[in-house]
Amino acid sequence: MRSPAQRAVLAMLLEVAGTPKPGNVDRQREYPDLRFEHFLAGAIGALPGLRAAVEGRSIGAAFETAVAGMSDQEGGNTQFGTLLLLVPLVAVAADDSSSLAPQAVTDHIEATTVEDAAAFYRALEHVSVAAGDPPADAAAIDVRRGADAIPAVRDRELSLYDVMALGSDQDGVAAEWTSGFDRSFAGAARLGDLDGGVLDRTADLFIELLAAQPDTHVRNQHGGTVANEICERAGDLIDADPAAIDQFATELIDREINPGTTADITAGALFIALHRGVITV
Amino acid sequence: MRSPAQRAVLAMLLEVAGTPKPGNVDRQREYPDLRFEHFLAGAIGALPGLRAAVEGRSIGAAFETAVAGMSDQEGGNTQFGTLLLLVPLVAVAADDSSSLAPQAVTDHIEATTVEDAAAFYRALEHVSVAAGDPPADAAAIDVRRGADAIPAVRDRELSLYDVMALGSDQDGVAAEWTSGFDRSFAGAARLGDLDGGVLDRTADLFIELLAAQPDTHVRNQHGGTVANEICERAGDLIDADPAAIDQFATELIDREINPGTTADITAGALFIALHRGVITV
Repeated sequence: MRSPAQRAVLAMLLEVAGTPKPGNVDRQREYPDLRFEHFLAGAIGALPGLRAAVEGRSIGAAFETAVAGMSDQEGGNTQFGTLLLLVPLVAVAADDSSSLAPQAVTDHIEATTVEDAAAFYRALEHVSVAAGDPPADAAAIDVRRGADAIPAVRDRELSLYDVMALGSDQDGVAAEWTSGFDRSFAGAARLGDLDGGVLDRTADLFIELLAAQPDTHVRNQHGGTVANEICERAGDLIDADPAAIDQFATELIDREINPGTTADITAGALFIALHRGVITV
Repeated sequence: MRSPAQRAVLAMLLEVAGTPKPGNVDRQREYPDLRFEHFLAGAIGALPGLRAAVEGRSIGAAFETAVAGMSDQEGGNTQFGTLLLLVPLVAVAADDSSSLAPQAVTDHIEATTVEDAAAFYRALEHVSVAAGDPPADAAAIDVRRGADAIPAVRDRELSLYDVMALGSDQDGVAAEWTSGFDRSFAGAARLGDLDGGVLDRTADLFIELLAAQPDTHVRNQHGGTVANEICERAGDLIDADPAAIDQFATELIDREINPGTTADITAGALFIALHRGVITV
């Protein structure tokens, strides 16, 4: 019986192993400087932070530890957004090992504090993240400022949940926080319904998620037009010939378009599905 | 900074991710019932046993825990032999984080007891292993008997080291125990000398090890003639065209010939190389 922390690492490994996942590093495709092994090392590195969440450390502190460990590899930011989903999920899974109810997750993250928010901003110091411009009144707490934003966060008495709420229009992971992790939970159920081995289901879920909403990581890096194009084209590829998906995957790698938010939600769904026994390995 | 246990899991993940590794599951090839995800889950499952070794639990108890966790997946025996190398290596790495000297490993395993041997036989209950016929005077302690062999092990007062010494002609992992882990240490040094990313080096080392000695797992499953054939043909593939190695890899999967001992030693070499900083990820 795997612990919640082991299950979370396994979810991260399954996510990166599922192929094809157009634009992202997977078993078959990688970038010259961001390779498969960096994701393996990132997942293993996150373990102490994930264990801290199981042991009841606050979400912010556990997340900061997880990100510090994840980023201790040479590929750069591999799984920041994934951990922002997995840390609260793991914390609740450890509390309530029976069901991992969406409401329990929301209750848990609504209870985050200003200190959790400060830890989140410190975690940003370990990585380079792609983010859109914040709303005009939120420039002082722009995530791109990293730890420099902490005084403004304290002044405004923002909890980590508040910070996520402010970013939820910009970032699909933040939107999960304020929507009861709805795409992650729906994705977990979908993993149970799809056919084939767990890695085939992972790849199929990824395409479906990519087709359902423009990826915010793509939008922040390449703009809304590109994000919408990728979303529409993914829609045409659901149940398409594998060769067509492979071609799309190769094209996106060539264009350096990687739908990272969709990968994050895929990993969240994998964790929930593993925890609930919807999928087994 | 990864802990020794994290480093050992990473070594297991890098081993299975290196491709092509003819005959074995890797990123590109798998068997219908023994797939890439089973190796990912096996590596993560081994973690509590590896941590037990770091924390000073006896080699046998840590190994039994590691194997129980490793085998908690649906593919069957993925990494039994690998863990038989990694558990003592991790234990010594935790004691002596500076250098991991071969003599320290030998000293550590020579100090194993009858209880370590009993735990090893209990660990066999979790998996199905391929083993050759034991010497005539060792039928009572045949590893294929699993825990049933424990009374005979106690009668003869055999330590785990003694058991490995009795099996060293039959099994390349046992031979590592009695030879100062010489192939693992030499492999670690070789990983530093080879070119390319860590997974390319992993695949190159695998071919070199396969060419250097007939794989005992292949010999136990398919006989000496086949093991010698694979060894000789691997020799022709060192520095060969990648297409030729790919063709050989596909052929071995078709013939269900998997050089598992060579993979085990590759994983041992990866752990040592990671620990010493000979390779980085």
